[in-house]
Amino acid sequence: MDPRLSFITLAARDLTASRRFYADGLGWSPALEVPGEVLMFQVGERLVLSLWARDAFEAEVGTLGDGHGVPPLTLAHNVSTPEQVDQVLALARAAGADPVVEGMERAWGGYSGYFADPDGFRWEIAWNPGEIGRLVLP
Amino acid sequence: MDPRLSFITLAARDLTASRRFYADGLGWSPALEVPGEVLMFQVGERLVLSLWARDAFEAEVGTLGDGHGVPPLTLAHNVSTPEQVDQVLALARAAGADPVVEGMERAWGGYSGYFADPDGFRWEIAWNPGEIGRLVLP
Repeated sequence: MDPRLSFITLAARDLTASRRFYADGLGWSPALEVPGEVLMFQVGERLVLSLWARDAFEAEVGTLGDGHGVPPLTLAHNVSTPEQVDQVLALARAAGADPVVEGMERAWGGYSGYFADPDGFRWEIAWNPGEIGRLVLP
Repeated sequence: MDPRLSFITLAARDLTASRRFYADGLGWSPALEVPGEVLMFQVGERLVLSLWARDAFEAEVGTLGDGHGVPPLTLAHNVSTPEQVDQVLALARAAGADPVVEGMERAWGGYSGYFADPDGFRWEIAWNPGEIGRLVLP
């Protein structure tokens, strides 16, 4: 099995709210959209982020945990400078992200902050000057 | 903000079990590893999958929900034929994945099945003959 991720699919409660946030707020253009069912964005050369209505997700994948904490994953969007981290966090705040955790220096040598999408999924906006950070930059 | 995903980070309970599954079982080579802390794999040209020890994840990101259902995301590994779906699911089963949901035809025109990693994160192994499926293939 090649180490290769093709899609990441997130269970979303309200795709209208997801669309408002990602398309209207962050300015992303959907790659595929079926209103009320699925909303997809191309987020890499061969990578798709899919937001899938929670009821259909549960019917296929299984009943979701209903804990009230944060989801057990983060999605990172890496940028080239610490200033860009702050700029993207400001954009997310303007788009209605809540909470937004301001950028701070991290023990691993970089600078990052977080914002939550309408379902609470955390995006980390990160400047990572290390080797693994350079690997992911365009 | 460019639509771009750089890292996906999953909260992992036991990185030794994660390593056994992904490296020994699936045959993936770590891109970066700090035993007991983090285990990273390159899963795309500019994409890293990071397994991060749950306590450190919670200290930075927040307390996790403790629901007992499935996590609210799936990761998909797309392949070129239905036969490859079955082959990868068999490999995952041999690597100890539990549960494994056998491949089946899907309403969207493809064929896919699922397996769970040691933390219950679901990987969908998918053959998708549609346009969006061709987009993600190497």
